[in-house]
Amino acid sequence: MIRCGVIGATGYAGSILVTLLVGHPEVEPVYLASHSHVGKRYSEIYPSMVGHCDLPLKEEDLEEASTFCDVIFLALPHTLASKKVTASILDRTVVIDLGADYRLHDVDVYETWYQCEHGSGDLIGRAVYGLCELHREAIRGANLIANPGCYPTCSILTLAPLLGEGLVDPSSIIIDSASGVTGAGRSEKTANLFSEINESYKAYGVTNHRHTVEIEQELSIVNGSPLLVQFTPHLVPMNRGILSTCYATLKEGVTEKEVAEAYETWYRDEGFIRLTGPDLPETRYVHSTNTVAIGWKVDPRTRRVVALGAIDNLVKGAGGQAVQNMNIRFGLDEATGLAKWIANPL
Amino acid sequence: MIRCGVIGATGYAGSILVTLLVGHPEVEPVYLASHSHVGKRYSEIYPSMVGHCDLPLKEEDLEEASTFCDVIFLALPHTLASKKVTASILDRTVVIDLGADYRLHDVDVYETWYQCEHGSGDLIGRAVYGLCELHREAIRGANLIANPGCYPTCSILTLAPLLGEGLVDPSSIIIDSASGVTGAGRSEKTANLFSEINESYKAYGVTNHRHTVEIEQELSIVNGSPLLVQFTPHLVPMNRGILSTCYATLKEGVTEKEVAEAYETWYRDEGFIRLTGPDLPETRYVHSTNTVAIGWKVDPRTRRVVALGAIDNLVKGAGGQAVQNMNIRFGLDEATGLAKWIANPL
Amino acid sequence: MIRCGVIGATGYAGSILVTLLVGHPEVEPVYLASHSHVGKRYSEIYPSMVGHCDLPLKEEDLEEASTFCDVIFLALPHTLASKKVTASILDRTVVIDLGADYRLHDVDVYETWYQCEHGSGDLIGRAVYGLCELHREAIRGANLIANPGCYPTCSILTLAPLLGEGLVDPSSIIIDSASGVTGAGRSEKTANLFSEINESYKAYGVTNHRHTVEIEQELSIVNGSPLLVQFTPHLVPMNRGILSTCYATLKEGVTEKEVAEAYETWYRDEGFIRLTGPDLPETRYVHSTNTVAIGWKVDPRTRRVVALGAIDNLVKGAGGQAVQNMNIRFGLDEATGLAKWIANPL
Amino acid sequence: MIRCGVIGATGYAGSILVTLLVGHPEVEPVYLASHSHVGKRYSEIYPSMVGHCDLPLKEEDLEEASTFCDVIFLALPHTLASKKVTASILDRTVVIDLGADYRLHDVDVYETWYQCEHGSGDLIGRAVYGLCELHREAIRGANLIANPGCYPTCSILTLAPLLGEGLVDPSSIIIDSASGVTGAGRSEKTANLFSEINESYKAYGVTNHRHTVEIEQELSIVNGSPLLVQFTPHLVPMNRGILSTCYATLKEGVTEKEVAEAYETWYRDEGFIRLTGPDLPETRYVHSTNTVAIGWKVDPRTRRVVALGAIDNLVKGAGGQAVQNMNIRFGLDEATGLAKWIANPL
Repeated sequence: MIRCGVIGATGYAGSILVTLLVGHPEVEPVYLASHSHVGKRYSEIYPSMVGHCDLPLKEEDLEEASTFCDVIFLALPHTLASKKVTASILDRTVVIDLGADYRLHDVDVYETWYQCEHGSGDLIGRAVYGLCELHREAIRGANLIANPGCYPTCSILTLAPLLGEGLVDPSSIIIDSASGVTGAGRSEKTANLFSEINESYKAYGVTNHRHTVEIEQELSIVNGSPLLVQFTPHLVPMNRGILSTCYATLKEGVTEKEVAEAYETWYRDEGFIRLTGPDLPETRYVHSTNTVAIGWKVDPRTRRVVALGAIDNLVKGAGGQAVQNMNIRFGLDEATGLAKWIANPL
Repeated sequence: MIRCGVIGATGYAGSILVTLLVGHPEVEPVYLASHSHVGKRYSEIYPSMVGHCDLPLKEEDLEEASTFCDVIFLALPHTLASKKVTASILDRTVVIDLGADYRLHDVDVYETWYQCEHGSGDLIGRAVYGLCELHREAIRGANLIANPGCYPTCSILTLAPLLGEGLVDPSSIIIDSASGVTGAGRSEKTANLFSEINESYKAYGVTNHRHTVEIEQELSIVNGSPLLVQFTPHLVPMNRGILSTCYATLKEGVTEKEVAEAYETWYRDEGFIRLTGPDLPETRYVHSTNTVAIGWKVDPRTRRVVALGAIDNLVKGAGGQAVQNMNIRFGLDEATGLAKWIANPL
Repeated sequence: MIRCGVIGATGYAGSILVTLLVGHPEVEPVYLASHSHVGKRYSEIYPSMVGHCDLPLKEEDLEEASTFCDVIFLALPHTLASKKVTASILDRTVVIDLGADYRLHDVDVYETWYQCEHGSGDLIGRAVYGLCELHREAIRGANLIANPGCYPTCSILTLAPLLGEGLVDPSSIIIDSASGVTGAGRSEKTANLFSEINESYKAYGVTNHRHTVEIEQELSIVNGSPLLVQFTPHLVPMNRGILSTCYATLKEGVTEKEVAEAYETWYRDEGFIRLTGPDLPETRYVHSTNTVAIGWKVDPRTRRVVALGAIDNLVKGAGGQAVQNMNIRFGLDEATGLAKWIANPL
Repeated sequence: MIRCGVIGATGYAGSILVTLLVGHPEVEPVYLASHSHVGKRYSEIYPSMVGHCDLPLKEEDLEEASTFCDVIFLALPHTLASKKVTASILDRTVVIDLGADYRLHDVDVYETWYQCEHGSGDLIGRAVYGLCELHREAIRGANLIANPGCYPTCSILTLAPLLGEGLVDPSSIIIDSASGVTGAGRSEKTANLFSEINESYKAYGVTNHRHTVEIEQELSIVNGSPLLVQFTPHLVPMNRGILSTCYATLKEGVTEKEVAEAYETWYRDEGFIRLTGPDLPETRYVHSTNTVAIGWKVDPRTRRVVALGAIDNLVKGAGGQAVQNMNIRFGLDEATGLAKWIANPL
């Protein structure tokens, strides 16, 4: 059994992760930390886990945990992880960071967009961007895996085949996304109160959301040269789910058939990607699963392709992909402990 | 593998049942029927099942299905089941009816409260009321199992220990329940439209909801003599979940300790019942599980006990309990294919 | 124009009150205070009020405000009001307190149930419980009006005619209520976050909610002798609305007709009470209005009456009734500035 | 008093219209028709209107109604209106059509996009597109006013200043919109059931939604030459509200200041438009009002402007704008009977 730890175990991403790890047949959670609930049992915070996960919540001590865990997941606000991870920790254990600290290859871009100092810029070179479908091989050998953001996971996978096959104009990309409220985390802010969100819809982070650069980094790699994207997230009054509606202008002569073939070529063997073609995805059909559902339509009038991707922001967009990364890293079947296609949409 | 069929496979209860059966390691769904979608594949109605359940939807033919299925689940509007089931069908296969037709032992009570004629009153004697925790032994030998209603499941299990141990006045029972909207089924009625339900709360069936007599039948058995209950259901703007808030006056001298002991005595060995004592249950903590969470408080001022039970109306209140009944009937571990305590409350 | 002030102007109750006062033709808001937003304009907190209410938010200073306001509304957490109000303030201005501090006639009951010391017990004698339909005459002459709680408003008005006409057993009363989330106020607690409440239903304050004693005080007066009630509130995933489902056992021989007559007798001339008889009320039909909708059914089997009342918790349950109290106190038409029957239920 | 009629009075758009007309000081509703509820009183369908609108619902007979109404509103499924309106009706009364039949100037475009035959193509020339802020003068003299669609109202007003001032590339326009569920009307479809929509988010009508051509017609006029737009609507689990997120590429050299000035120039005197600049609008802040809130941000990296408009789809997007059109047509103050800036966002 793989011994695993979770630091930041009681937030939304952390709690999904714990749930998945408890149900995973090949791992044993041995260390859970949550600085706001030290001393309580995990099941006191999440009563549905009584009898299934009664571990005590510890102080957040990565150094200590690394001496007895095979893998440690970090689900922390940004910059905190970068101050905890050290080279020696990485030498003895695998760290999968669900936060943003090791996702960007360029420390300057990180410090500009996150407006803070990176705590361990020298370790960025050891990190692999853990978007499983694109970086599977690198993940196998990495001891520091940067689990992607929720919007980037959905948006990059939806657009990659179009750019990778050279079908669209790289300067034309607009990503209009919407997310359920768990994406905002479990922090106590007025803006996250029920009555502030229920019966309303709004955009946020327009022109400057931090996930923009994460998407640009990865799509630039796929594209073979740098590109910029327009990314706008919105908040939907629901708990879970992200839908990214992506717009790109087709290059001259590109046909609808070529678009479909690009998706088939890239994803036909991917267990967690469901191509729906013109039957466009809804978030409820991926609820609680690690699946990315991707559909698309070509508009002959405007010569644009509109591609839509849907994920569960807490699973493929956080805890589920973290488990998928662990599975890859430890040589397990990639789908172990993860729901794929089954989810009753209610 | 147990070969199973579902008639009424595309309604809400039916679809949860299909999902559970597809994931059940000991059964194989071989026959799905839905009179409104004949000819389509199941996954055309529920796209998240593509690759997992692509069976064609057949005409509803119980007679035919009984020749090749070991067990057939019926998820039909009331009276329909009573017209389809025959003695010879029951001789060759097990029928688990999720509807109301075989729940009441007295055909007159059925016809009075349901305002219709029963199609096979002679078969009622062969039916067992499939509330697993109370009638486990009888279920083992039954070929016609009447799966309980959602409100009765929740309410009966919450009140049974209090009546069974003689702690409360049987004439004092009031059950105030609230349900998510899937309980109303998938029929196309104005009253079930999103904008008619969202941002509102209402009671319905006040003084005359049909589940009243089902609750009375079972609690009268537990009580040892007939009793009446006051039952009021409400509709909550959410998809899933039932909470029953049950009131009963304590008999003179009964202590809080005796109340707690009654619950312990009755349920300590039940895998699907979670006693929460004074930490009262919320519906989200049983979402997607087959668990009944039961808590209670004694009010020393009024000498009443307020007992609260929570279930997922589609699982323990419908498809999950149907699977539990099948497990019992076929000698499998009762929990096979069912979620117990784990459910991330998001 | 009546000059009015609001202390606690940016919470949910306060903000509804401000909206109503801004639209009221006979008053002019001249002083708004909010200790957490001192220095900002009101419309910075509620942008929909730009151009309609741009008053600066002041420090909470009741003493000062009382020198230039004709009426001051307090929308503060309990105990705070009792420390601010003084006899001399009441000598020069009218105070309408939306909090709990002056609702209970017995300071000991207050201190026991609220677990805190009352700051001005000597002033309780000057306070009138501002349930307009029951205490209209006393309100006309009061300088300290205790605006009732949301649950008590709904529950007392629903039950008063039954007790007042002596139709029901006073020891049999059970009140099962459910409220939208604005009732919990705008404080930043994890329990009030969107994803903690959405898709769930729960009870709280079972056997010990503070509104219990407020209901008992008023119903005891109506009843003519002391009584106890069983009161259980629940939380519904919606913004606004309260529904109280009230149970009482009819005295021997009481008929359904007498029940209907009691409601007619008490309320036929009340502009803000809509009797719906057996067409039971839903919260959406009183949304944004100051109306109480009351329906009822008699159960011949159990000899109980089930009476249901619905209000908008922020209007009749808070800011609207406060305005109604002001209207009465200052001799205006009671309905001025308040919506009565019109509300599109969407 | 202006005597008015409403045909299609019980759908969502119709019911908001009736509510507004009942509260309007200068009009008197004298004729309400609803083919599905003929013979009932209006307040039987919407109980909150008891005592306020108890008119009987009549057969839908525009010919007859035109003999005694000064203005008749049609809230009907498309093509029905075009079969009812005649030249002689228009000679004696004003018709304000909330449907699509007279919005498009080109009958061929109508028949292609709506896939049906137009019933009175010869009358299109008499129709004025009733987007009040753009066509106020023409509306004053029109007897056939085509009330705009909800998405077009929001999208056209958000983009018009940018195109009208020549600041953006007309070929670059992408409109990503999201709407509450009342936009889908009150028809009994499975897709509109609560549990099909709650906790999910999806796009629909991608590349071929009919509002596309309506937006193109009007923006082409503003632009001075034909243009195409990319329009994608989404469905949000809430009752009311539309947010349009509009993308356009700035022409070379255009500054952020010029963008702000364009909005100021076009809308500074408009009573129903609230410019929020970089404080982007949320749908809840226009709930129940006739206001359009418009904000924008310029992205210096991509040289795009992202402009966001928010409306209440049932008010400015349907019944409210219909009243605004009536006010203009009959020479009343344009804001009579309409809420402007005040709306408590709860």
